[in-house]
Amino acid sequence: MSNSLGTVFRITSFGESHGECVGVVVDGCPAGVSIDPADIQTYLNRRRAAEQPGATPRKEPDAVRLLSGVHKGLTTGAPLCMLIENTNIQSEDYSDYERIPRPGHADYPARIRYGGFNDPRGGGRFSGRITAGFVMAGSIARAVLSHVGVQVYAHTVAIGSIEAPSCEPERVREFSRVDALGCIDPASAALMEGAIEEAKARGDSVGGVVECVVLGLPPGVGEPVFAGLEGEIARAVFSIPAVKGIEFGGGFALSRVRGSESNDPYVMDRGVVRTAKNDCGGILGGLSTGMPLVVRVGIKPTPSISIAQRTVDLDLGREVELSITGRHDTCIVPRAVVVVESMVACALCDLGVRSGLVPGVVA
Amino acid sequence: MSNSLGTVFRITSFGESHGECVGVVVDGCPAGVSIDPADIQTYLNRRRAAEQPGATPRKEPDAVRLLSGVHKGLTTGAPLCMLIENTNIQSEDYSDYERIPRPGHADYPARIRYGGFNDPRGGGRFSGRITAGFVMAGSIARAVLSHVGVQVYAHTVAIGSIEAPSCEPERVREFSRVDALGCIDPASAALMEGAIEEAKARGDSVGGVVECVVLGLPPGVGEPVFAGLEGEIARAVFSIPAVKGIEFGGGFALSRVRGSESNDPYVMDRGVVRTAKNDCGGILGGLSTGMPLVVRVGIKPTPSISIAQRTVDLDLGREVELSITGRHDTCIVPRAVVVVESMVACALCDLGVRSGLVPGVVA
Amino acid sequence: MSNSLGTVFRITSFGESHGECVGVVVDGCPAGVSIDPADIQTYLNRRRAAEQPGATPRKEPDAVRLLSGVHKGLTTGAPLCMLIENTNIQSEDYSDYERIPRPGHADYPARIRYGGFNDPRGGGRFSGRITAGFVMAGSIARAVLSHVGVQVYAHTVAIGSIEAPSCEPERVREFSRVDALGCIDPASAALMEGAIEEAKARGDSVGGVVECVVLGLPPGVGEPVFAGLEGEIARAVFSIPAVKGIEFGGGFALSRVRGSESNDPYVMDRGVVRTAKNDCGGILGGLSTGMPLVVRVGIKPTPSISIAQRTVDLDLGREVELSITGRHDTCIVPRAVVVVESMVACALCDLGVRSGLVPGVVA
Amino acid sequence: MSNSLGTVFRITSFGESHGECVGVVVDGCPAGVSIDPADIQTYLNRRRAAEQPGATPRKEPDAVRLLSGVHKGLTTGAPLCMLIENTNIQSEDYSDYERIPRPGHADYPARIRYGGFNDPRGGGRFSGRITAGFVMAGSIARAVLSHVGVQVYAHTVAIGSIEAPSCEPERVREFSRVDALGCIDPASAALMEGAIEEAKARGDSVGGVVECVVLGLPPGVGEPVFAGLEGEIARAVFSIPAVKGIEFGGGFALSRVRGSESNDPYVMDRGVVRTAKNDCGGILGGLSTGMPLVVRVGIKPTPSISIAQRTVDLDLGREVELSITGRHDTCIVPRAVVVVESMVACALCDLGVRSGLVPGVVA
Repeated sequence: MSNSLGTVFRITSFGESHGECVGVVVDGCPAGVSIDPADIQTYLNRRRAAEQPGATPRKEPDAVRLLSGVHKGLTTGAPLCMLIENTNIQSEDYSDYERIPRPGHADYPARIRYGGFNDPRGGGRFSGRITAGFVMAGSIARAVLSHVGVQVYAHTVAIGSIEAPSCEPERVREFSRVDALGCIDPASAALMEGAIEEAKARGDSVGGVVECVVLGLPPGVGEPVFAGLEGEIARAVFSIPAVKGIEFGGGFALSRVRGSESNDPYVMDRGVVRTAKNDCGGILGGLSTGMPLVVRVGIKPTPSISIAQRTVDLDLGREVELSITGRHDTCIVPRAVVVVESMVACALCDLGVRSGLVPGVVA
Repeated sequence: MSNSLGTVFRITSFGESHGECVGVVVDGCPAGVSIDPADIQTYLNRRRAAEQPGATPRKEPDAVRLLSGVHKGLTTGAPLCMLIENTNIQSEDYSDYERIPRPGHADYPARIRYGGFNDPRGGGRFSGRITAGFVMAGSIARAVLSHVGVQVYAHTVAIGSIEAPSCEPERVREFSRVDALGCIDPASAALMEGAIEEAKARGDSVGGVVECVVLGLPPGVGEPVFAGLEGEIARAVFSIPAVKGIEFGGGFALSRVRGSESNDPYVMDRGVVRTAKNDCGGILGGLSTGMPLVVRVGIKPTPSISIAQRTVDLDLGREVELSITGRHDTCIVPRAVVVVESMVACALCDLGVRSGLVPGVVA
Repeated sequence: MSNSLGTVFRITSFGESHGECVGVVVDGCPAGVSIDPADIQTYLNRRRAAEQPGATPRKEPDAVRLLSGVHKGLTTGAPLCMLIENTNIQSEDYSDYERIPRPGHADYPARIRYGGFNDPRGGGRFSGRITAGFVMAGSIARAVLSHVGVQVYAHTVAIGSIEAPSCEPERVREFSRVDALGCIDPASAALMEGAIEEAKARGDSVGGVVECVVLGLPPGVGEPVFAGLEGEIARAVFSIPAVKGIEFGGGFALSRVRGSESNDPYVMDRGVVRTAKNDCGGILGGLSTGMPLVVRVGIKPTPSISIAQRTVDLDLGREVELSITGRHDTCIVPRAVVVVESMVACALCDLGVRSGLVPGVVA
Repeated sequence: MSNSLGTVFRITSFGESHGECVGVVVDGCPAGVSIDPADIQTYLNRRRAAEQPGATPRKEPDAVRLLSGVHKGLTTGAPLCMLIENTNIQSEDYSDYERIPRPGHADYPARIRYGGFNDPRGGGRFSGRITAGFVMAGSIARAVLSHVGVQVYAHTVAIGSIEAPSCEPERVREFSRVDALGCIDPASAALMEGAIEEAKARGDSVGGVVECVVLGLPPGVGEPVFAGLEGEIARAVFSIPAVKGIEFGGGFALSRVRGSESNDPYVMDRGVVRTAKNDCGGILGGLSTGMPLVVRVGIKPTPSISIAQRTVDLDLGREVELSITGRHDTCIVPRAVVVVESMVACALCDLGVRSGLVPGVVA
C-alpha cells in the first residue's frame, strides 16, 4: 500500500473502519499557522453521518485528537498527527465478505492483492471511513492556504439524475456550509432529497457529482509537466472511494466544441489580466491562470445495497446470491463534499509550497 | 518544474519544441527486456504529423536515438536515455507570444511562473512536441508489460461531436494501428475526417475523446489509497497537453444511475472469477479486478487557431487582437492516441513493479 | 520538515519530547507478517532509560500502542501506526532555551528555521526521545527481514576512548541483548562504565561508537547509483541525533592502505562464492555481496552537560554563561544501540522490497 | 536501479562507461540562472584524466553537450540535459569479467542483481566514468548556490598514509583549483605524488580522504529529521564509487572526547551569532548553524590493480588467479575532489530550495 500523498506538504493516512482509530499525519506544514482543534472538529463534522438524508445509521462522535505539531495554538514546523477513535463497531456484519465479495466493493481484488490478510471488518482500509483522515488533513491544508488568500469550496451539483443549475464560482462563498446536502440551489436540493429517499425505499443507492472551486489562487502555481494542477488534484481526488471521473473547467464538453469556442480570451480588468470566460477551469499548461479553479468529480452510487445481487463464494468456487444487511449510506455524495474539498486543498497546498506561493514560515 | 513520473519505474522528460531535442530517461526498468529501436521508431511514428487529416505541416523524421541502458538488444537494469532531434524549426513564428499570450496556451501563466525566463519558442516546454518523449518511454513500458501478458491499446472514440459506437474491449486487438485517425469504426472515421476538414477550412480546431483499454491485467494490481490505479493513471494522463477530463469504466454516467445498475455482479466463468459486466472499468478500490481496464480521456480543441482572438499585450497592458499564423494541428486527437497509450502504460508499469506483477529481472 | 523515510517501505515519524506522544506510521509493509506487541515492547525497552549507567533520570513506561495495520496478529498490508505517550514531563526545565541556545543542541538553528515557532520543550522535535518512534518502526522492519532470513544486530564498540576488541560478525548472535551497555566484551564494558561514571561525576558527558552487523543478506540487494546500500543506510542513520560519522567495512582506514590490501579476494566455500575477508563491509557498488554487512557509527557526547558553558542571549544580543540543569544522559551510546539497529533495519527493509528480496505478501 | 537524487532539485544520471555517452538531467532548477557551457567544461575538466599523477591513460575530450533547459544563456525552469560522448573505448579489455569478477569491483553482486544482463564493458553503469554526469549536475548546482552566496570547495587532505595539515575552512578559497592533486599544502602534495608513484610502480593503488567545505551557508538550512544536512549529503556522496566513510566536523574523533570539549560555545561576533569553534562541522540537528559546513570523505584504493589476485570463475565454479590489464587509475582521489564537491552541491541545492534559501526564480 501507498498511504502518503504529496512531495513537500505530505499527508500519511492510517487506520481502518473497525480498528482502533482513523488518522493522518500532516508533514511539511509551514510553521506559524494558527490551528484551533474546534475548527478541525467543525470541518470533520461536515463529513459525519448526521442529519443528511441517506446517511448511514452508524453515528459516532468522531472527536478529533491532535497529538503533535502544534504548540501554543500554532504549527511548529513539525508533523501533525490527528486521529479519531472508532466507537460504534458491529464487525459481525462483515464476517462473510472475505469469501463472498460484495459487488462494487474492493473485497475481491483486495483479497488477491493482500493474500487474504487484509482486514475485512467494515471494508477495513477500503472503507469510506478512512476519509475522516483526509478531512483532518484538509482542515490543516485549508488553514495554510487561507494564510495566502486561497479558499477552497465544494458543493453538490448532482444527485442521480437531478442536476443543480450552474452558478458563478464566486457564489460558492454565499453557500451555507451546514446545509444537509451541500447543494447551493434549494429547489434542486429538494428534488435530490426525494431521489435519495426513493432509492432508500427500494434498498438501492444513488451517486452524484461534486464541484470544487478554488478562489484567490494567483497565476503560476503548479509544477508541470508531471505535477501540473490537474494531475496532482486528480491523483488526490481519486483516492476517495467511489470516484470514477474528474474534469476541469469545461471538461469533457470541451471535446465537442471548436477551439474558437473553448479558448478563453484574455482581457484587462482594471489593470489585471483576466480571461473573459473560464472554460479552462483556471488551468493552462498545468499552471493556474489566476481565475477560479473549477473541478468536477463524478461519484458512483454506494455499492452497499440491500437488493439481492449475484456474486461468488470464493472458497466454494460457485455463484451465490448476496443481500447486504449492516449499516450503510444510501448516498454518500453529501458527505463526500467536504472530502473532495479536503483532497483538493491538500494537493493545492503541496503545489503551493513547491511553487513558492506558501512560505516555510508564515508571519 | 517537476519532470519525473513514477516511483520505481520512473520516467524523466526533457527537451523543448525548438531546442536541440526532445527526450526522456527511463529508470527502474527490469533487466532482460528485449528492446528493438525499430519498434520504438514504429511507435514514435504513430505520433508524428504524417498523413493524418488536421496534422501540422511541421514534418520531421523524429528518428529515435537510444543512448544508454540497452546492451546486446536487452535492457541492463540501467536507465535508458532516448531522444529525437528537432530539425524543422521556424522560431520566428513565435517571437511575439512572450508579451501577447495566446488564448488557451500556457504562455501567460508560464511567463508569471518562470519570471519570463521560460523558452517561448514553439511553446517551449509546454509544446505538444514534448510528448514524443512520453511515447519513447511508453514504448519501453509496453515492452515490459508485454513480458507479463499485459497489453495497452488506445483508440479515438470521438472527434468534436462525432462519436464512434462503443465496442467490446477485446475488439481493440483487431484495430489496425496504422489507421490515420486511430478510430475503430470506419463509418465514424469518415465523419470525423469531415469534421476536421470543416474546422480546418474555417481556421478553427476540434477536440475529441480517446479511450484506452488494458487487457491481460491480473487482479490485485495497484497501491491504494494514494496510488490506486485511477489516481496514478490520471496523474500520468493529465501531463498530456489539452487533456481536461478523465473517467474510468462507466465514469460520469455512473453518477446518474442506481447502485443496483452500476455494481458489477461477480460470476464464475470456467473456473475464473469475472464480473458479468464491467462498469467499474476494471478497477475497484484502486486495484485491478482482472477485467479489462477502460479509461476515457477528454481532449480540448487545439488552442492554436488562425481565427482572430482577443488577448492582451502584457507589456503595454492593453487588449489586442491576435491571429495565430505558424504551423499547427487542426486536431491533435489522432496523434494523441499513442500518447495516451504511452502514459497509461508508464503508470501501469510503475504500479506493476510496485505490486509485484513485474519482476526486477525478466527471464 | 521532512519526516518520512523510504520509498516503498516508508516510515513517518511524529511527536515531540514534551507533547502528548511520540509515534510512527509504517507504510508499505508486506501483508502476513506476524507482529506481537510484546516484541515491539521488548525492543522498545532496550531504548528506555533504565539501569544503564549514565542514563537520564526521566523514567517512563513507554508502553507501545499499536493502533492500526495488524489484524489477528498479522500485518494486513495497511499502514501500522504505533505510539507511546509522554508521561513524565517537566517542561519548566527548558523554558529559557528559546533565547539562550544550548551549545551542541539544535536550539539556535531551529529557532532560525522555524521562525521561533518550534516547540522548545525538552528539545521538542529535536529530542532524542523521538527515536522511540524509530525503534517501533525498526521492530517491524526486523520482523519483515527475519521472514527472509536477514538479521540485524548492533553493539557498542567504543565509549569515549575505551574501545572493545573487534569480534567476528557472526559472534554478535551470542551477544546478550539485555546487557546494560550493549558491549560484547565484558572487560571493555567494565572500563566503559568507569568512563561514564567519571564523566558523570564531573557533570560532563561522553560519546562512543556503535557497530551494526547484518547477517543473512543475500548478494544483489541495493538500488545503485543513488540508492545503494551505503547511501540509504547513511541517510537513515544520520537522522539519529548526535551521529557525526559513518563508515562501512574497513571505512576510513581503507584510505590508508593499498588496493592489494583492501580488495577482498573471492573464494569458493563449499560451492558458495564468498570473499576471503570482508573489508568492503559486505557492499560493492552499493550492492550486497552476500557477506555480513558491517557499519560503524560515530556518536558525539551528549551536548547536555551541567558544566558551565558560554553561549548567547539571542534577545539581548550578548554573551552569557549557561549551566544546564534538568535531566539528561551522561552517555546515550548504550541507548543508541537499538536505534542504530532500527534505522539500519528500516533502510534495509525498503531496499529489500525494492530489490525483490522481500515479497509483497509473506506466506 | 535508482538513478534520481533529490526531491525538488533533482538529478537523473544515465550512461555507461563504454556505451554511447554519460549524461545527466537536472530538474527543478530555478529559472534565470546564468549558465555558460564553458564553465561546465572547465568544471568537467577537473575530473578528467589529465596530468594528475596516477590517472588512467584513457584520455577523452569529455566535451559537454547542453541539450535543453537553457535559453539565451539563462535557465528557463525546464530540465537541463547534458552529456559527454564516450570516444576512447577498448571494450575487449573487459570481456572476461562477467564470469571472473574483479575483487573490489561490483562485477559479482551486479551479475546477481541484474541476472547477468548488466553491461560489463568497462564496469558499465558501475564505472567511475558515470561521475562525469554528477559533475555536470554539480556545475549547475554550484551556479544556483552562488546566486545566494553559497560556495562549495573540496580538496585532498590525505593520499594513503600521507595527511596534509589541517587548514582554516576560509583558506580553501585561496586554493588553486587547477593543482594536479587538489591538495592545499605543497609539501604534502609532493609526498602524496611520491606515494602514488610508488604504488604505480608496484602495480598497486592507493586511496585517500577528500574534505569539502561550504562557505556562506546561512543558519537554518536542512529538513530534519529524515532530510537533515548530514543524511542528505551522505546519501549523495555515497553514490560516488569507492567511498566507504563520511564524517562531519570533528566526526569520529568526537566520539572520543567529552561533551565539554565537543560542544561549540556560541559567541557574539560584531553582532552576529557564531560559535567559537566548529567541531559540529556547521550542522546541529540536521540544520546549518551559519558556520562553515565541513565534511570529510574516505575513499578506498582503486580496486583495479595489476598485481595478481585470487578470484573465482563463476561459470566453472572454481578459484582462479586474475591480473587486471586494461587502463586504470593508480589513485582516483585527485579526480574525485570535484565529484565530492558536485555531490555536496547537489544535495545542498535541493535542501536550499526546500528550505526557502533558493527561490524558484532568481533575479
